[in-house]
Amino acid sequence: MRAVWLENQVLSFRENVPEPGLLKGEALVKIRLAGICGTDLELVKGYYPYRGIPGHEFVGEIVRAPDAPQRIGQRVVGDINVGCGTCTDCRAARHKHCRTRSVLGIKNRDGSFADYLSLPLQNLIPIPQTVSAEAAVFTEPLAAALQIQQQIQIGDADSVLVIGAGRLGQLIARTLASQAGQLTVVARHQGQQALLSAHDIDWIQEDGINDRAFDIVIEATGSPAGFTMARQAVRPRGTIVLKSTYRKTNGSKRPIQLSSLVVDEITVMGSRCGPIAAALDQLEKQKVDPTELIAKRYFLNDALAAYEHAAAPGALKILFQITP
Amino acid sequence: MRAVWLENQVLSFRENVPEPGLLKGEALVKIRLAGICGTDLELVKGYYPYRGIPGHEFVGEIVRAPDAPQRIGQRVVGDINVGCGTCTDCRAARHKHCRTRSVLGIKNRDGSFADYLSLPLQNLIPIPQTVSAEAAVFTEPLAAALQIQQQIQIGDADSVLVIGAGRLGQLIARTLASQAGQLTVVARHQGQQALLSAHDIDWIQEDGINDRAFDIVIEATGSPAGFTMARQAVRPRGTIVLKSTYRKTNGSKRPIQLSSLVVDEITVMGSRCGPIAAALDQLEKQKVDPTELIAKRYFLNDALAAYEHAAAPGALKILFQITP
Repeated sequence: MRAVWLENQVLSFRENVPEPGLLKGEALVKIRLAGICGTDLELVKGYYPYRGIPGHEFVGEIVRAPDAPQRIGQRVVGDINVGCGTCTDCRAARHKHCRTRSVLGIKNRDGSFADYLSLPLQNLIPIPQTVSAEAAVFTEPLAAALQIQQQIQIGDADSVLVIGAGRLGQLIARTLASQAGQLTVVARHQGQQALLSAHDIDWIQEDGINDRAFDIVIEATGSPAGFTMARQAVRPRGTIVLKSTYRKTNGSKRPIQLSSLVVDEITVMGSRCGPIAAALDQLEKQKVDPTELIAKRYFLNDALAAYEHAAAPGALKILFQITP
Repeated sequence: MRAVWLENQVLSFRENVPEPGLLKGEALVKIRLAGICGTDLELVKGYYPYRGIPGHEFVGEIVRAPDAPQRIGQRVVGDINVGCGTCTDCRAARHKHCRTRSVLGIKNRDGSFADYLSLPLQNLIPIPQTVSAEAAVFTEPLAAALQIQQQIQIGDADSVLVIGAGRLGQLIARTLASQAGQLTVVARHQGQQALLSAHDIDWIQEDGINDRAFDIVIEATGSPAGFTMARQAVRPRGTIVLKSTYRKTNGSKRPIQLSSLVVDEITVMGSRCGPIAAALDQLEKQKVDPTELIAKRYFLNDALAAYEHAAAPGALKILFQITP
């Protein structure tokens, strides 16, 4: 099959990659659309020593399912974390944190920038009929945005700052627009600003952040500098939600002063993957329309150009159109 | 009056320090007992560039109160944070986080290692009659221990690890013993271990910490190494409560990897001063008896020996006996 391949931080397009084999309980998915996420870009920079097919955002169709043939033909999206099923974390409903988990296109499992992928049947969630493939391909990042509200209650009384108006920041802003008492987004690029304005979401430039002014600050820049801004913007006893993952930094430039978190009683909350069902529900009810975030579609054999586009400042969602 | 004096990180005993003057609404307190805390030791190391009389734990008696003469003679402890009263934080009931606050013996306000101190009347809280001075001198650190439960609910289902069994760690362990489903304390020194055993509190050595085993980990070692242990001990989606303040570290040795907090969805929560009234209530109801933590009493003119004793590995509470 055709696939994008990542090895030693070098990306290539290959035409002769074997189709994934199926373990018990797994199904084969023919991929239609796949999205490039910040984590994919970080993998190329060496965030995690991954070798294989990258990509974890997708929409596709089940084409082989030996243990559940009735599911063949279903349009699906995926929960990208596959736990062992037996450890403490898996038994405590934290399979996303299983130590020996595989993660689609990120860790020990070939991903979605290919003709086919395999996942366990329970990781493949059917898409409501009224949700288009173009919307459904955003399910995974939309779920990641919704995860914030699973971890911290955000309501009328809260002033919220989202730092970063890229792919994830835009989705976070949309899911919070109706929840937060006051919502502001730090947006660097004109295109990002225009999208926010179109939804009546307030935005500011980086130099417009007021010190200690926000109850909750969500860091979604994808870069270490975002934390410094978040730390400055959050009020004492406020909460910083971290959404960015990036390659290890040596930390010597701007070390985090834990004592200052104690003195100001700041809560710092890491937040990762979220509830797929809730994301599909938002798409079905048209509470969020992510399709306007699509910047361009590429074919798999244009992978390098696609990645380059996705890494450009201010770029929004780049998709691979794998099947028409 | 007599006082301990800290200047350029040098500690001295002085006999000719002027008594503090009183601003409107303030009262003069004759100090009976004062306790040395980890923050006092860190100030000598340069945690904060403080010049003046250190000390913030005390029990004393109001001897002058021009605006409330009826309060003269009251035995009191103190809320050590004095806010401006008009800023956003003060108006939001966060005077402890007022940017221009003074803090007794820590920032812009002479402290308790002296014959007298001054504080606003509303910062001076009367001690219930049945609470001894020896117990009441622990009110401030006991309140700091109780602050944890103001910030995070700890119940039957939670396994809790307290790292550090010094002055603060012991108080935290006692306030949690009846709350947490399972409580374990990392204790390095025999004396600390014996105190915990006497209260049927489980303790382990540092090398006995199980990886990713605890729902909530409380870091009370007073040193940067505590965070590394806490990070190792907390389970995915668990919470680390930070209680230690220490001088700035260059951070290059063990930089905190924010991405790993995201991947494991860890919450890190800074926690500082706590509710004085709740602490006095615990003392009055004899839920906690802190007096057994007293290691030794010193006179003010023995300040250097007292500090040295307090800084010794495993040392518990050192008091200054200022008035008999």
